[in-house]
Amino acid sequence: MKLSKLVGERIKEVPNGASLKSHILLLRAGYIKQVSTGIFSLLPPAQKVNLKIQNIIRQEMDALGGQECLFPVVMPRELWEMSGRYSSISSELLRFKDRTGHDMVLGMTHEEAAVHMALNTVKSHEQLPFMIYQIQTKYRDEARPRGGLIRVREFTMKDAYSFHNTQEDLETYYKKVYDAYNRIYKRIGFKNFISVKSDTGMMGGKVADEFMAVTEVGEDKLVICPKCGYASNMEVSVSVKDENDHTVAGEMEEVFTGNAHTIEEVCSFLEIDVKHTAKAVCYQTSDGKLVVAFLRGDYEINESKLSKLVRSELEYVDVEERGLCAGNIGCVNLTLPEGSYVFYDQTLKGLENFVAGANKKDFHIKNISMTRDIPNAEFVDISMTKEGEKCTICGEPLTLTRGIEIGNIFQLGTKYTASMGMKINMPDGTAKEPIMGCYGIGVGRCLASIIEEKADDKGIVWPMTIAPWHVHFCPLRLDDENVSAVADELYKKMLDAGIEVLYDDRNLSAGIKLTDSELMGVPLRVVISPKTMAEAKAEVTIRATGEKIFIPIHDLISELKMMIKDEIEEIEKSARE
Amino acid sequence: MKLSKLVGERIKEVPNGASLKSHILLLRAGYIKQVSTGIFSLLPPAQKVNLKIQNIIRQEMDALGGQECLFPVVMPRELWEMSGRYSSISSELLRFKDRTGHDMVLGMTHEEAAVHMALNTVKSHEQLPFMIYQIQTKYRDEARPRGGLIRVREFTMKDAYSFHNTQEDLETYYKKVYDAYNRIYKRIGFKNFISVKSDTGMMGGKVADEFMAVTEVGEDKLVICPKCGYASNMEVSVSVKDENDHTVAGEMEEVFTGNAHTIEEVCSFLEIDVKHTAKAVCYQTSDGKLVVAFLRGDYEINESKLSKLVRSELEYVDVEERGLCAGNIGCVNLTLPEGSYVFYDQTLKGLENFVAGANKKDFHIKNISMTRDIPNAEFVDISMTKEGEKCTICGEPLTLTRGIEIGNIFQLGTKYTASMGMKINMPDGTAKEPIMGCYGIGVGRCLASIIEEKADDKGIVWPMTIAPWHVHFCPLRLDDENVSAVADELYKKMLDAGIEVLYDDRNLSAGIKLTDSELMGVPLRVVISPKTMAEAKAEVTIRATGEKIFIPIHDLISELKMMIKDEIEEIEKSARE
Repeated sequence: MKLSKLVGERIKEVPNGASLKSHILLLRAGYIKQVSTGIFSLLPPAQKVNLKIQNIIRQEMDALGGQECLFPVVMPRELWEMSGRYSSISSELLRFKDRTGHDMVLGMTHEEAAVHMALNTVKSHEQLPFMIYQIQTKYRDEARPRGGLIRVREFTMKDAYSFHNTQEDLETYYKKVYDAYNRIYKRIGFKNFISVKSDTGMMGGKVADEFMAVTEVGEDKLVICPKCGYASNMEVSVSVKDENDHTVAGEMEEVFTGNAHTIEEVCSFLEIDVKHTAKAVCYQTSDGKLVVAFLRGDYEINESKLSKLVRSELEYVDVEERGLCAGNIGCVNLTLPEGSYVFYDQTLKGLENFVAGANKKDFHIKNISMTRDIPNAEFVDISMTKEGEKCTICGEPLTLTRGIEIGNIFQLGTKYTASMGMKINMPDGTAKEPIMGCYGIGVGRCLASIIEEKADDKGIVWPMTIAPWHVHFCPLRLDDENVSAVADELYKKMLDAGIEVLYDDRNLSAGIKLTDSELMGVPLRVVISPKTMAEAKAEVTIRATGEKIFIPIHDLISELKMMIKDEIEEIEKSARE
Repeated sequence: MKLSKLVGERIKEVPNGASLKSHILLLRAGYIKQVSTGIFSLLPPAQKVNLKIQNIIRQEMDALGGQECLFPVVMPRELWEMSGRYSSISSELLRFKDRTGHDMVLGMTHEEAAVHMALNTVKSHEQLPFMIYQIQTKYRDEARPRGGLIRVREFTMKDAYSFHNTQEDLETYYKKVYDAYNRIYKRIGFKNFISVKSDTGMMGGKVADEFMAVTEVGEDKLVICPKCGYASNMEVSVSVKDENDHTVAGEMEEVFTGNAHTIEEVCSFLEIDVKHTAKAVCYQTSDGKLVVAFLRGDYEINESKLSKLVRSELEYVDVEERGLCAGNIGCVNLTLPEGSYVFYDQTLKGLENFVAGANKKDFHIKNISMTRDIPNAEFVDISMTKEGEKCTICGEPLTLTRGIEIGNIFQLGTKYTASMGMKINMPDGTAKEPIMGCYGIGVGRCLASIIEEKADDKGIVWPMTIAPWHVHFCPLRLDDENVSAVADELYKKMLDAGIEVLYDDRNLSAGIKLTDSELMGVPLRVVISPKTMAEAKAEVTIRATGEKIFIPIHDLISELKMMIKDEIEEIEKSARE
């Protein structure tokens, strides 16, 4: 490819509205262009990376015996009603009417379509297990698209669905897919990714793992045990909570706290430790029921866990409208409307001598005892894990980090096969619903996340296995006829040797050409100039390390082929380990 | 791939509602499954064919210097308003609102997105010409989806867009794409396809060619000159019309024709030749203007041409409501509402002694003379071409046939670059709108059309270049341990040799297995059985011809490789001619 003809431009300025490294660099280096909020066109270099990532995924799915197929992007309402998801998924599922007035949806995942394909076409237990998968465009009507390709509305995804006769068979297969996922990320070039236990969310099912590119800019909070390897999305993480102070409480006492409403204000006003407080967090369910959750003042609420307890999304509630006293809500003398939920987090278990709101304007209560004053409280786990809390498995301190979700796998059970009436004839003559697993990878997320992991202050750094080109060929002083003749010849030789090369054939300054090459991130840069040619050499720079090697021009092609092969093999080898 | 695990089933019965050969066979052989009207899932074998066709197209686009990219499926209204197509395309363009109430569309073509990508990222004439293309899912809200993959709502398409400094450059490039298209269809395996001049339709532009798989079941009517090679879609075809009878007319005379309303009825009632009649065809434009077209009774109206004349779609009109006398409309004494259109087809030019409606219930007029009685008539070309009419180029008789449109190419001009404000800096310092071409191929249409061309009464016949597998391996009597051991070994050897093989590992009757193999259409079938093994041979059947060859088992792998290679090379060679 000649750079003079490549569609796209390289720009110096940080584009408006972009803050994430991958977003900025993809825009600056001419890889993506925004068409609408959360909707991008991929320019030719990005599509090259996209296809290479897809190919790695395809190879690993095929190696598992996966059968590639293609489900529709546009599906009829009826299909999604069979599983119950037409109503259970909120506005992320894009619904519209076709020209005949028929209700349709845009696919954000394809469990229903997968079961539809297998329904009546797979009938015998002997055909199981099997896995069908596709690599395709999906649409999710995200409320808050952000970060370039990290959280988009339209994206390319590999989604796979496996069908099994028994739970044991699913678990065996699930482990194989898990291993294949690890190979996929390693082959893409990730060094810093982990898998964590995760929430099953709208998919249903009981067991789920997420694959996370570990990075401080990730949206997901992760809890890790450096000792035993426990790793979990914060949403479902567990930990041994801080021990509480069990010193027996004195008598309860109402105290004036005035404008002190937040936990920090109350602690400061009363000069007490935050560990001797209980705070209240309030929501309403989607059908309007009030939810009040109490937890120790130094903990944060885990909305994901609370949401599961009430089986509803959690919405903002105006507590004053419900007769509560905002800023002074407490667990003593609390009167709630009928049908409300109240929960006590485990961090409050056995707590003595603590302060909570008095349910009365400007007042809190001191010296509350959980055991004495709220003897019937039952405790649940609805608090976030804190850095340094103990691992429930090995007792070591946990650490927190963040990640970008680059894949997820689920043991779905029979949610979809049962609701859609798919049955398999078993050897004993009975008919049984197959047990399913499903497995997703976001291709664009991988593309952006690898930039987050590897980019430096000069630009993108692509691993050789997914780089748009292997070599960025940058002859300098193309106005010099010798340079230009040798450059054209070398370009041709590279192409003939099967080297994927981007040839910067523009007669521009060294500054522009070298800066462009660093920005674009091709793994090897080859420079020739009157100076290097005087020694019959070419300068090869390894983008990832900055290391420079001078290679005699007549050895250049074979040396480049070797370097490319070596780097690909090193990555492939690491994936097999 | 083991057939026992392949998702999908083979069925004997012709599915309800399917009449087209490709539709029936794709359903019966387990290639597609309908999800909604005009929306299908591709089962694994169909997706294999799909990817192979895509790959052929990709290679040819890359060879032209095409840069693969990816445009969004979902686009904002604003983008389509820039070109004016948000309002000019009717309900085929699917419009919907996203969760924020923003108007969006589903992409049915991507001219706007292509210009959007190049806008401000390509600035200099030196970067032109370039071509960007994608292979992607599209959605068109067809009023009448039909025929399986022939006319669908959701489909996979390759669409390409080229940008040029001059019209000459576009024309040179257009010819190159034209040649590449011919290579693509030949490589896919088409023998019977042609290119025809075509209408530019909603794309705009002036020159367009369609590629047609020639078949009697095609939706498009084609006009061909077997002598000089003139070939055209009926919609834009031209021909030398039949000579008219110029014998001078007698006096006009009103005659009672009673219930005779159609041309056939009137001719039979008055005992006259249909060539001595003029019939009227009526429509309304989309803004309600009446359109009356007269043509000689033995000709059919060409709605496409008439539609262009009035620059509107043609809609049904109730002529009685407009004060006309249905069944008796004629060109003499015709009174039309103000603003109506009236057209005379060239087939009426100079016609004498003819009959037309009297614009009066139960009456027609005899002895009309075009020159004498309607002296101011101007003649236009709005009639269909008839078999046997003369070619306007060489004068030989034309023949009619039908075809399925499997691709189209357009010289677009500056319609999109001008409306979207894309300008290129020219060498003389001026800025100029680039001139565009666009080039589409429907992947699913190709898949279905090749079945229409090649299938026989037993099932599908795939060309080797796009077959889902090269070999369908059908060992018979798998309950025989010898057969089963040799079969497993041969299967492994085929895989090791890189042969794409579907292994029918089911212990079923020869009847079922052989019938399934014929239905599925894999080019080579290999049978072993106790009988063939007694002679240490395998039976190889060529699906396309039915020819059977017995090959010693120890030569089987090398012979199969040779046969596969030979067929692929033969097809590839024909494409280079």
